This record gives sequence, C-alpha cells and structure tokens, in this order.
Amino acid sequence: MDYHQGVTASVTPRIELDTLSQYEITRLLDKSQSGLYQLFRKCSLAVLNCGSDMDDTREVMERFKNFDIQISQKHRGIQLDLFNAPDTAFVDGKIIAGIRENLFSVLRDILYVGDELDLNYTRLKPSQSITNEVFHILRHARAVKPRIKPNLVVCWGGHSIEREEYDYTKKVGYELGLRALDICTGCGPGAMKGPMKGATIAHAKQRNENGRYVGISEPGIIAAESPNPIVNELITMPDIEKRLEAFVRLGHGIVVFPGGAGTAEEILFILGVLLHERNRDIPFPLIFTGPESSRAYFDSIDRFIRDCLGDEAASKYEIIVDDPVQVARLMKSGLFQVTRHRRVTGEAFHFNWPLFIDYELFQQPFEPTHPNMAALELHRDQPTHRLAANLRRALSGIVAGNVKEAGIREIEANGPFELHGDSSLMQNLDRLLQQFVQQRRMKINFSDYQPCYRIHH
Amino acid sequence: MDYHQGVTASVTPRIELDTLSQYEITRLLDKSQSGLYQLFRKCSLAVLNCGSDMDDTREVMERFKNFDIQISQKHRGIQLDLFNAPDTAFVDGKIIAGIRENLFSVLRDILYVGDELDLNYTRLKPSQSITNEVFHILRHARAVKPRIKPNLVVCWGGHSIEREEYDYTKKVGYELGLRALDICTGCGPGAMKGPMKGATIAHAKQRNENGRYVGISEPGIIAAESPNPIVNELITMPDIEKRLEAFVRLGHGIVVFPGGAGTAEEILFILGVLLHERNRDIPFPLIFTGPESSRAYFDSIDRFIRDCLGDEAASKYEIIVDDPVQVARLMKSGLFQVTRHRRVTGEAFHFNWPLFIDYELFQQPFEPTHPNMAALELHRDQPTHRLAANLRRALSGIVAGNVKEAGIREIEANGPFELHGDSSLMQNLDRLLQQFVQQRRMKINFSDYQPCYRIHH
Amino acid sequence: MDYHQGVTASVTPRIELDTLSQYEITRLLDKSQSGLYQLFRKCSLAVLNCGSDMDDTREVMERFKNFDIQISQKHRGIQLDLFNAPDTAFVDGKIIAGIRENLFSVLRDILYVGDELDLNYTRLKPSQSITNEVFHILRHARAVKPRIKPNLVVCWGGHSIEREEYDYTKKVGYELGLRALDICTGCGPGAMKGPMKGATIAHAKQRNENGRYVGISEPGIIAAESPNPIVNELITMPDIEKRLEAFVRLGHGIVVFPGGAGTAEEILFILGVLLHERNRDIPFPLIFTGPESSRAYFDSIDRFIRDCLGDEAASKYEIIVDDPVQVARLMKSGLFQVTRHRRVTGEAFHFNWPLFIDYELFQQPFEPTHPNMAALELHRDQPTHRLAANLRRALSGIVAGNVKEAGIREIEANGPFELHGDSSLMQNLDRLLQQFVQQRRMKINFSDYQPCYRIHH
Amino acid sequence: MDYHQGVTASVTPRIELDTLSQYEITRLLDKSQSGLYQLFRKCSLAVLNCGSDMDDTREVMERFKNFDIQISQKHRGIQLDLFNAPDTAFVDGKIIAGIRENLFSVLRDILYVGDELDLNYTRLKPSQSITNEVFHILRHARAVKPRIKPNLVVCWGGHSIEREEYDYTKKVGYELGLRALDICTGCGPGAMKGPMKGATIAHAKQRNENGRYVGISEPGIIAAESPNPIVNELITMPDIEKRLEAFVRLGHGIVVFPGGAGTAEEILFILGVLLHERNRDIPFPLIFTGPESSRAYFDSIDRFIRDCLGDEAASKYEIIVDDPVQVARLMKSGLFQVTRHRRVTGEAFHFNWPLFIDYELFQQPFEPTHPNMAALELHRDQPTHRLAANLRRALSGIVAGNVKEAGIREIEANGPFELHGDSSLMQNLDRLLQQFVQQRRMKINFSDYQPCYRIHH
Repeated sequence: MDYHQGVTASVTPRIELDTLSQYEITRLLDKSQSGLYQLFRKCSLAVLNCGSDMDDTREVMERFKNFDIQISQKHRGIQLDLFNAPDTAFVDGKIIAGIRENLFSVLRDILYVGDELDLNYTRLKPSQSITNEVFHILRHARAVKPRIKPNLVVCWGGHSIEREEYDYTKKVGYELGLRALDICTGCGPGAMKGPMKGATIAHAKQRNENGRYVGISEPGIIAAESPNPIVNELITMPDIEKRLEAFVRLGHGIVVFPGGAGTAEEILFILGVLLHERNRDIPFPLIFTGPESSRAYFDSIDRFIRDCLGDEAASKYEIIVDDPVQVARLMKSGLFQVTRHRRVTGEAFHFNWPLFIDYELFQQPFEPTHPNMAALELHRDQPTHRLAANLRRALSGIVAGNVKEAGIREIEANGPFELHGDSSLMQNLDRLLQQFVQQRRMKINFSDYQPCYRIHH
Repeated sequence: MDYHQGVTASVTPRIELDTLSQYEITRLLDKSQSGLYQLFRKCSLAVLNCGSDMDDTREVMERFKNFDIQISQKHRGIQLDLFNAPDTAFVDGKIIAGIRENLFSVLRDILYVGDELDLNYTRLKPSQSITNEVFHILRHARAVKPRIKPNLVVCWGGHSIEREEYDYTKKVGYELGLRALDICTGCGPGAMKGPMKGATIAHAKQRNENGRYVGISEPGIIAAESPNPIVNELITMPDIEKRLEAFVRLGHGIVVFPGGAGTAEEILFILGVLLHERNRDIPFPLIFTGPESSRAYFDSIDRFIRDCLGDEAASKYEIIVDDPVQVARLMKSGLFQVTRHRRVTGEAFHFNWPLFIDYELFQQPFEPTHPNMAALELHRDQPTHRLAANLRRALSGIVAGNVKEAGIREIEANGPFELHGDSSLMQNLDRLLQQFVQQRRMKINFSDYQPCYRIHH
Repeated sequence: MDYHQGVTASVTPRIELDTLSQYEITRLLDKSQSGLYQLFRKCSLAVLNCGSDMDDTREVMERFKNFDIQISQKHRGIQLDLFNAPDTAFVDGKIIAGIRENLFSVLRDILYVGDELDLNYTRLKPSQSITNEVFHILRHARAVKPRIKPNLVVCWGGHSIEREEYDYTKKVGYELGLRALDICTGCGPGAMKGPMKGATIAHAKQRNENGRYVGISEPGIIAAESPNPIVNELITMPDIEKRLEAFVRLGHGIVVFPGGAGTAEEILFILGVLLHERNRDIPFPLIFTGPESSRAYFDSIDRFIRDCLGDEAASKYEIIVDDPVQVARLMKSGLFQVTRHRRVTGEAFHFNWPLFIDYELFQQPFEPTHPNMAALELHRDQPTHRLAANLRRALSGIVAGNVKEAGIREIEANGPFELHGDSSLMQNLDRLLQQFVQQRRMKINFSDYQPCYRIHH
Repeated sequence: MDYHQGVTASVTPRIELDTLSQYEITRLLDKSQSGLYQLFRKCSLAVLNCGSDMDDTREVMERFKNFDIQISQKHRGIQLDLFNAPDTAFVDGKIIAGIRENLFSVLRDILYVGDELDLNYTRLKPSQSITNEVFHILRHARAVKPRIKPNLVVCWGGHSIEREEYDYTKKVGYELGLRALDICTGCGPGAMKGPMKGATIAHAKQRNENGRYVGISEPGIIAAESPNPIVNELITMPDIEKRLEAFVRLGHGIVVFPGGAGTAEEILFILGVLLHERNRDIPFPLIFTGPESSRAYFDSIDRFIRDCLGDEAASKYEIIVDDPVQVARLMKSGLFQVTRHRRVTGEAFHFNWPLFIDYELFQQPFEPTHPNMAALELHRDQPTHRLAANLRRALSGIVAGNVKEAGIREIEANGPFELHGDSSLMQNLDRLLQQFVQQRRMKINFSDYQPCYRIHH
C-alpha cells in the first residue's frame, strides 16, 4: 500500500474563543500512553479525511501513516501544523473552513473529557453520574441550547447506501429543513450526509441562518465515519454508549433511514429505552422511512422487531415509504407533542432529563470481546427492554468487527464472534444480517465482505 | 384550462426597513394604465410561481387568472394579502421566507423605477444616463457592495436543460462556492438554479454566511423564469437591455452553460461589447462549459461565432468541457486579473464603470415587432461588434416570440418573424437554431415547438 | 482673526453600502451656484467642528476659511480628503468614528435632496407633497423603522444652558434610557447633548446595543449646532420647516428643557399644530421640565402661553420640576397611549401620517427678511393655532438673526427686525425675550448680546 | 436597623447558553456547610445592591437579611426567583439588564470553581497550578480573548473618592476609550466606576460596540464593592490573591488613581511582582494619575515607595498629574511596547504567561488573623520584592479589617491588628495610613473611622 503524500499546512481557529494553556498543549503533544496525542491525531485525521470512501478505520490509519499534527501557542493564539494531511480537506491548498472548525471541536472535546471533566458529585448514582457527564460534555460544546422549541431531528441510517436511497435522504432533509427543523446525525457519508445537504438548501430558501447540523461521533468510529464539513457542531463523545445517550437526550425525534448493523443497533437502543415502563408516557417521535426501493428493507426490520420484541415495540415507530413530505409533517406534529409535554411537566426543552436509561443495560460500555459476545443472553426469558439491550450489544459487536480498529484486530486474531441464544431469536437475527449482506449494507467495500460473526441456532 | 385555486395568505416583510408612503400604496393598487398594479401583480405572481415548470408567460398568467394581490398599511408596517397564490410558494400554509423576501424586492424595484428614479442629470449623454440609471437601481437594491474584491460570477445558460447538464451546473457552482465566489444568474430553473444550489452547499462547508445569490430579471421574462428562492438578492430591471448591462457591470466574470436562444443572445451581447475597441484592455473572464454530453453544443456555438464574427471574437472566451475544478480555477485566476486591473486603474471593484456600451447598439431597447425584425441588418458589411449587436437583436426577438407575453401575441397575430441577411450568415444562424430545436433547448415544453421565426437565405 | 491650521486626513466610510456614481461625485465637487460643493463643505465642516463652543455660523465659517473637502472614487470605494479640518474631530490624528459616520450621512442627504428626490406624484396637494418629501428623506436615511413600538422621545431645549441644567438633561436622558426609550434632538451642545449622554450610560447598563440617538438638523443651523458624535443617525433636512415636521412625525413624544428663542419657536410650532381641531384626538405626550433652578423659566413660558394662546394651549403640556424619574414615567405612560391609539386606528408606529400640518402656516418656508418680519400678523383676531404660527415665525426670525449666516448678514445690513402687533401680545413677547437675555439663553457668547429685533407695543 | 422590604421578582437569563444540570441546581440550593447557597446568596445580593453607598459587607448583609434567592429549572431554561431584593436593581419593577447578566456571571463562576474546576494536572508545581487555575476560570468566563492586540487597561483606585477625583477618572476613561482601549477594574463605585462611564461615552462616539468593561471581584469583597451594571464581564475569583493575579495576567497595563489601603495593597502587589528579577524585561505600563487636587496624595505614595523600596521600585511607574490625554497617550505607547514584546517572544496577547509570580509571596492566600499580622516580617533585611510582598499583606489585612466581613468580626473580637517592624519602615507606613485617614480614603462612611490596626515603631 502506498502511503499518502498529502498537504502540509498551518491552521488557526476562526472562532476567537479558542485558547489553550501551555499544560493543555503539552498534554496534546504527549505521545505516551497517558497522553492525548494518539487520540487527537486519530480524530483529527478522521475530520480531515472527509469525502473519502473508506470506512475501515485501520485502512485509513494505514494509508495516512505519515500524517502528523502539531500544536503550538503563538502570540495571536493557537496554531495547528498539519503534515501529509488528506488532499480532500483542501481547496487549492487552503483548508475548508468547516473542516478547520471541526478540527478545533475535536480538540475541545478531547481536552475536556481528558482533563477537565472530573465532576465533584460524589453522591450521584452511577446512572445519574453518566447522564450528568453527557450533559456536561454537550454543554461544554455549546450544544445545549435553551429557549428553543424542540426541533432537533436525529437521522440514523447507513453510511453505505444506494444512490436512490441517498437522494431520498436529501429529500427528507429538505422537507424537514423547510419546516425549520434542525438535523443531527452520527457523521459520515450516506444517510448521515444526505439529510444535511437537503436541509442546507431548505434553510437557504427559508433564510434560516442558524440551521444546526449536529454531528455526534466517538473516537472508535470517527475514522470510519468522517464528519461531513456541513456539520457545524461536531461533538466527540467518549464511547458509543454515551454517544447513543447524547442522541436521545439532545434530539427531540428520530428518523431512521435504511442502513446496516449500526442502524439496527441504534434502533434496538431506542426501542430498548422506550420500552422501559418509566418511559412509557414520554412522547418520542420515531419514524422509519425510505424510498420505494427500500420497502423490503423495512419489512424485514419490522418483522424482526415484531418477532423478537413483540407488537408493543412495533407501536413505538411509524413506517413511511416514499413520502418525504409526510415524514416531515408527522415529525413536526410529533414535536408539537414533545413541546406540549415538556411544557406541562416543566421539563427542559434542551435536554431530555426524565428519559430513564438503565445503567447496566445501556450506559455501561460494552466491550465486544469474544467472551463478552459469547456470553450475551439472547433468549426470551427476560423483559423485552432487556432483550432489546442484549440484541443491541450483539449488533454493536458486529459493527466493531466490521469497521472499528480494535474490533477488526480482535477478529483477525480470534476469528468471528460466536453468538448463542434461543433458536427462533437467532434465526431472526441471522436472517436480518444475511439480508444486510445481500443488500450490501455491511460495508462500503461490500464485494468481499467476510462476516465477523457466527450465529448458532 | 382550469384555473388554479391556490393559497390565500397575508405576508409581512421580515426586514424592518420596508415602509411605504400612502401614496406609494395607492400607486401599487392603481389598476389604470398609468398605475403600477398590473406590473406588480405579474412580477409577484412570477415570484410565487417558482418551482413550476411553465416557461410560457401567457400560460402562467392564464392559469393564475384568479390570483390577486393587495397591499395595505398596518400599525406595524405594510402587509401583502395574497389570493389564490400558487401552492408551491407555501409549506404547510406558510410562505417560504425566500419567496417572501423576493416579493418585497420586486415591490421595491417597481416603485423605485416607477416613481423615484428621475435623476437630475440633465447634462449627461444618453449612454451615460442609462448606465447611471442601471447604477442607481442596483445601488437602491443594495446590490452594489464596495470594498469586496471582485468575486461575483455571472452564470448564463438555458432554463430547459438535461439532467446531466443540470447536475454539471451544480458541480461548477459547488467549485466556485468553495473558492468564495458568489453567483449571479438571470433567475429561473436549469442553469440558473444549479450553480446556486451547488454554491449553497459549498458556502455551508466554507462557513460563508454572506454568500450572494443575485438574480437579475425583468418584467418581460420574470414570469417565464421564476426566481429560485435561493436567490437572496432579486433585482428587477426595467427591460432586457438594462438587465444585460446590469450583468456585465455588476458581475466580474461570466460562465456560460448550454442553453437556447436566450443564452445565445447573452453570448452575442457580451461579445459585441468586448469586441468594441474601447474595451480591448479591460479583462473580463468568459468561460463556456458543460459536461461531456454537451461538447457538440459548444462546438456549434464556437463554429457559429468563428464563422460570423471571426477568430478575434473567439479569443474572448475559453471552452472547458467536463471539468468543474478547472472552470473554477480559471475563473479565480481571471478574477485576480480583474482585481489587479481595477487596482492599477483606480476603478471601482463594485461596478464596471469603464466598460463602454454603445447606446444605439446595446442600450436602446429593441422592440421585437415584425417590421423591426425584418429590418435588422444581418450582413458582413459592418464592424464585428455591430454585427454581433444585430444578431443579438435577432435572437432577442426569437426569445420574445418563444416565451414573452407580448412576443407570443405578436406571433399569433402576424405569424413568424422574417429574418433576412447575407446568405452565409443566415445559414449559420439557421443551423444554430435548428440545433437548439433538435437539442430541445427552445422551450421546456419542447415536444410541440413551433418556430416563431423564418430565416431567408 | 487667525485662521485655523487644522488636520489634513483621508477618510473612507465604514459602512459598506456607500457608493457614488461618478456624476454624483462631479456634483459634489461642483463649486458653481448650481453645484453642491458649498453646501457639502459647510455641513461637513459643521460635523467636524463638534465640541467647539461657537454658535455663530459666520464665525465658524470665518475661522475655518482654509478648510477644504474633496471626494474621489477609489477601487475600494469613495474617499474623502479633508484639509485644515478642526482638530477636535481627531484623536491622535485619527478621525472619531462617529464623526466619520456623520460626514457620510450629510453627504447622503445632500445628494438625495439635491439630485434624487423628485417624486412623480403630480396629483398630490402641496401639503401632502411636502409631508411625502419629509417621509422620503427620512426613509432614505433609514430613520423610519417599522415594527417598533413608539419609543422615540424628542428632546428640545437650549444649546446654551447652565451646568446645573445640563446635568439635569443628562439625568432625564438616563431615566428615559433605562426605560428603553430612544432620543432624538436637533444636534448641538447643551440640552441636545445631555440627554444622549445620559441615555448612553443607561443603554449600556440595559445592554441595549441598538439605542438610537437621532439628530435632525438643517443646513442653515448645522454649523451653529454641530452634531455630537454620539448622534448615530444624523439627518439633514432642507429647511427649518421640514426639520420641525420631521421631529413631530418621527418622534412619539417631546420633552422640552429650558432654552432660548429656538426652543420657544419649537414650543410654538408643536402647540400650533396640536391646537388645530383636526389633531385634537391625536395623543402626543409633551413635557416641559428642568431642575429647581429653572422653575422661573417655565413659569414665564407658561404665563406667556396662557396669556397669548389661552388655557387650552396650556392643557397640551405638563410641567415637571426637578424630577427626572417622574418625567420618564409620564413619558412612558404617554407613549403607551400613543401605541394604543395607533393600534386602534391602524396607523403606522413609525411615522405620524394623520397629524395635520397646515401648509401655509407651518410647511411653507418662512424667510426672515425685514419686510416679512414687519408684516407678521401678531394680533388676537385669528384662531389660536394661526396666532401660534405667526409667533413661531417671529421667533424663527430672531433665531436667524442670532446665529444663522444669512440672518446675521441681514441684521448687519439693515439693523434689527421690527415687530408690530397687539399691545398685550407684544408686551408678553417682549418680556419673554428679555428674560431670555437676562438668563443668558440667547447665545453661548452671551456677554455682549445685541438684540436683533425691536418690539413695538 | 430596619430590614429592607425589597422587590420580589423572577429573572431568566438573556443569553441562551445558560443551562444547568439538576445536580448543579441542587448544589446552589444546598444551605449546608458544603453547599453553595450561602456564597451564591451573598454574591447575588452584592450584584443587586449596586448603586448603594455602603461599603461595609456586614452592614449590607444585615440590611438585606430578608433577601432570598431561589433557582429552578423551567422548560425554557433556568429561572432565578428573588425575594426582598434591593430596589436599586430595578426600574419600574423590571431588573436592569446588566445586573441580570451579572447575576448569571456570579452563578457561573461559583459553580465552576465549586464543582468543575478540578484539573488533572498532577505534575504541575504549586505556582503553575494556581496560574493554570486562574487561566481556566478566566477562560471559562470567556474573558480570555485571543487575536486582539493588547488593549485592556486595569484601573485601580479608591471606591471612596472626592467628586473632583471621580470626574477625573471619567475623563481618563474617556480618553482611553477614544483610543479603543478597554477597561478592567475591581468593581465598585468611585475610581472603579468612573473610567467605565467615561469609556462608555467614548466607545459610543467611536461606534465601538464591543467595548469591554471587565470587573474582577472575589466573594470577600464583592458585597463592599458592588459591580457597576456597566460591567459587562464580571468575574468572581476565589480569593484576593487570585484576583490580583487575574488583573496582571489579563490586563496589559495599569492606571492607578487615588485610593486608600486597598489601592496601596494593589500598588505593592504589582511592584513586588515587577521587582522580581525574572520579570525585569517584561514591559508593563504602570501610571499613577489624579487631578491637581490629588498631587499631594501621589507625593506621599511616591515618597513611601522610594523610602521603603528604593528608586528602582519608583522607576517602574510614571506619575502624571491632571492630564488625561497624556495618560492615555502614554498608556497607548506602553501597550505598543507590550504588543511588540509579545510578538517578538511569541507569547500570547491574551494572557501574560511569562510573568513570574512567586508562590509563597503572592499566590498563597494570606489570612489576616492577629497572629499572622503580628508575625509579618516588616524589615529591610530582605530583597525588595519580598519586602513589598510583606507590606502588601499588612495592607491586605487592614482592608479586611475595614470592609470584609470576616475581618470586621476579627477586629471586634480581638481589637486592632498589631504591626511590628523596622522603625523607619513603620514610620513611613504609619504616615501613609494617617494620610489616608485624613484624606478620608479609608471608608465611604469616613466620619467615625476607627483604625483597625496599631503600628509599633
């Protein structure tokens, strides 16, 4: 493989508020285990590598092995020096402003999580403590904006989708944008980029200069899902669990487009949360949608959910095929209900505090090792929200095995993950995953996809 | 034909500066010959009818026969009341903000041209006087922005183009936008919309919140070429000649995409101007471009120009096929030259005062009647810039016969225009126009196109 | 007298919208009778001479005989070149930004009134026509701001007042500013500066970044009453009558501080207008106020009004002595009534269209020549609003004789103005003027004041 | 003493970014020893009590014993509920916007210092650690603004000064403001308010909408020196030492007006720092100034410094009597040197990192107890910077005994502080303090001033 000989450039922040202490700079340059350099380099590279069509973190890292980033303090403020950075981040040698901004967002979150976030709340329960941490990271990133009526729509879906599906996500984004709704996605191409593009055009037509394009990522996935430069609020959460929690506490409703294992993981997460009895009265608009060509996809998702989690789970979402206007209208009316509910209960518009997220099931980081995967309890002898949680973990492991650095290494060393469970459940899961493979949704580079899992039923 | 039963709504301006005197309101409501109501209604309807695919002014007027617009003064400011307005202007019953803005831009220009613009410069020559008027209208519309380095790129091209060509115009707009260039077009769909869309995405990525999307129209054409709501500076010039002058005095360079008779008219206008000896030293970047599929189109345009106007004319432009990045880079370097030239000569960045535009050839409105068309001097016994001017008029008449209200009526009453001239010229012209017809560039509704002209050679 | 050897500097506008045509530049440089240079030079000098304590226009002109101003077009926009400008306009050689801004405001109004303002409303009556002109000048200056609840308080009063009175005007301005009210004055020092200073501090405390400090002047008086640089909207009306009309149509209420003949002129103007029967139902808050030390002053004004115009006239205003908070509260509640009235009647917040101003009495410019002054009908055999108008003219002539260039020359050539009329009226007038002289309110340089009038009774 | 029956009102933040977690709210309402309520209440009361003329913290606390503040989360954001708040904070029942803003600034700092500020820099030395903490508090308050050339002038001086001195501070502030310099003071009336008022007028004239009025306070003093509502950046540092460090690291130059013991403490602090050999090459403009009437004051300060610390100490400052323009010009040229120095050394414009501040002498909080005061080493057998530090502590104790709550209580319980030292030093100190008493600079309520110290020599 030939290493990339990219662009070498110096970059200063546009926003005037970015200053660092000399100790912070030292920390960012510290290449030791306890230092922040490796993390900072990886995430910066991901931001710079936008527009590429690689979704294999290791490949990205390999290709840009030469890439280096340095930070220093000048009399006018901080300066980043980039070496052998991906060309796609530059136009005629000048870095794209959105990418520059996102570089500094990454830096902000890494420092905050690494050094500052050490809250004095000794009396909080673990679950409260994590939620509080999520809140602090988001607030520090200025993503928590009070006094705005619920209007942030999370869009989930695959990064590797067909042209027709991609165009459809643009149309949905356009209709959402025409209705003054903002977009939040997990960064990356495909269903994470389309809605932002559509909303950008709509916001321009509506003269909405404050359109928000929130991207929530995490270090493990960011290199595989480079933030689109349209993203104007990039937040890097410490792990996938906090990232998912950030989506559901910050966002006011969710639209799910076709996707692969990652999307299924997200669906299981939100269903698992909403199925908990403490959340039954909290309105949360959830719409699955795609063009006519993806009707089969949602049929299989719907069947999987009904078979594994029952009809109550299926009552939590609405499926709309090939009707962007209807998606936007339904979301808008769902958000009215959210608004009314928050008003009546006096709960904050800007952060969904009352949503209960079980510590053990959904907050505790799940490490997808072979023993952990093999030990997952995938049977029907448990409450549905717990089963949803375990299925979520299974899919989380598969995503890791597909695109995350540590996961890929794990699979290379020890072969595919082994999953065990109730036969009917496992058959359902197997069918779903096979459909993803057939529909080429597992990876961008789908042609030689080797499953990273083995399902026993 | 069934009349449209559209939306009835009240609209107030967003911008706080819009106030009217009671006399202005009276003028706008005055339906008499000397009043402004008819003009105001027609232009407003055009703005509201954006997104439609009608390019026949008369058809538009017929379809929205029921449409009415009223204006009144309230304690908080002026209010427009719309009756039976096109649905496409509204989202869930609420007018699109960009359309609302453009409605008030139309109103601003109609009042200014109709009532205020009566300058006291008795000692100016006719040509100076018209240029001065163009300047005043643009300045009053706040389109003349000093202290900004030349960066406004005029995009010309057809409103009725193929999907592939349309996508290409978006790509060029995107590359221009990435380089901080602003877009100016003649409003309408096709090549007038694509570059704005592309630039919108690029400006979002570059965090350019001041992206300009200037649309310059005129009452005769506006209904056929509804301004796209992305247009955030809509200017309605009194006639096609002042519109063309506005393009070349306000814009700093021109990109020409494939188009039909209107585009050819524009090309002949700019070539006729640039060919005048007084303009020889004024740099003016001019690029013809399209995707691979339109290579033949530019070949025929190029041949027509070389045959009719000679190689000097052809030296004024560059043809680039299928390379948006190259178009943007060449334009950018051309604009550097413009900037340097203005600096050296001390001429204004914001208005091309020194460009000489001959009064008789290019400023005096040409009325496309049958006698005027028949009398056009289309022979080689004249300076090339004069021949270009006369060919421009011929094409202007054909555009009118295709899509303008008065022109269509004229053709219906008296049959096609007759054009006479040197045989070789007329053959060239005939061939060009036939190619436009074959390539379906004459009208959106191309299937039953009936030529509005007859060429004698 | 030694001529001032002042500062020579080049100045460019901060606001990006200021562009001029080359014809406008020619007009501004035209020193002929029909050109605008003399007017432009005089008003510019006045703006630059702020902070001086000269109120004699001729003296100002004499002292800065060397002053010159040139204007030119550069590639980045227009540029003013100043020669021998007053030092007070500069800080360490750099012009004060507010003064720079006001220079360009003066230029804007001179060009608009001189060249552009030639409206096409042939069917308007003279009175409507003038009101319309006032509206157009104000709108062109962006002073007409719709959608804002009535909050613009006009402050009238002397430019030559005692320290204690001056401090009192600051306190009133402070209390008005704390209540989100904006200030409009006639420019100049004393009671025209104090309220703006007070309001500036209050707006800072209230974080009101949009505080308006409107100064309305006219060429005849501007050199005697240089606009304070706090003035952030300077408007130069063509004559004193249109200036007075601008005050009462743009402002929503009036506070009158102690002053001299000019203030009395203003009082008679507003009373004459309000006393007309067509204006009886239009609420217009009018407060006379000063510190304890000026109690006698308002007693004599009040007596003069009651004696000459009767108690109805006196019912139009409220006198408050030494209570800034009460002034602000009363004004605020008066403005509530204005707001309600405009809402109920549907009249504009931003311009007092319905207020009737008699053409012959109050709009037609009054030229203070000796014959015109001598011919004034100062008797009780006329409606009070008409008597108020004639007394207004008498005082207008006296102001001219005191501080305006033409007036001073007139007096030098022909001696004092002669005023004739009913004995009781004339005695009242005489007493009032004598009190002004005694109270040193006639001129800043009061010690050698020579009355410019002779009253016969 | 009668308790104040003040205003009861609800207040929400204007700035949209203020959100709190429920745990933070709990902390603010926690009245226990470890909770933040008492601190929050005290500082809020101080902010609300602006405009009062009390400088005795205990008196303030006593008078507003009834005052209470509650905080809660509503759907639109947080809300403060005030009970029996000082009337002076309100205009017609509505809180002054600047005070509202400062209330939320106080809250921000209390929470940050109390809960969040717990940095992970285990390897820093104590001195670095404190400097880093100061930086983090300032940055969190958005007071560290990069990319701005050094322009922040710290103004020190007494809160209890004569009218003539006060007017002089306004004039100096005005001249600084005219030159685009921003103001930083310790909050409170007198010399801390005057410069801000003057600069406000100057910034209005210079159309400087971003004028900074930084107030740096600390909980121990804030009630005695209520922040003026002009202060638009209020920062509450944890103790007097960090407050002093914040002044010299954030500010770029210092102007010292006449004052009492607190001002002398500040002078000794900055001299002690600048006299350290590691700081010898760091330019730091330091100007002592006042009107003619305070010439004697600066004579005695100058004599005291020369006698106690020697001529080198005196070479660090410039004394200018009665010349505001000269003060501003000298400061401006001093700031040019600071700018050049930072450029050359590559040090940040926005924070004076290289300035060495000795941990033991200047950063460690000094607790003014009787034993600590008695043990101060006030002799000449030490380096001058160390002697300056000890004299600074002596004066710090006297300030505490005059106006801080704990100090006053200490004095009531144990009588005046006893100070011992070299005879000549003690005589000098004694004379200086006596002059302060005679000049009525010790307390606002000077008539019955009882010294809180006894000097032995």
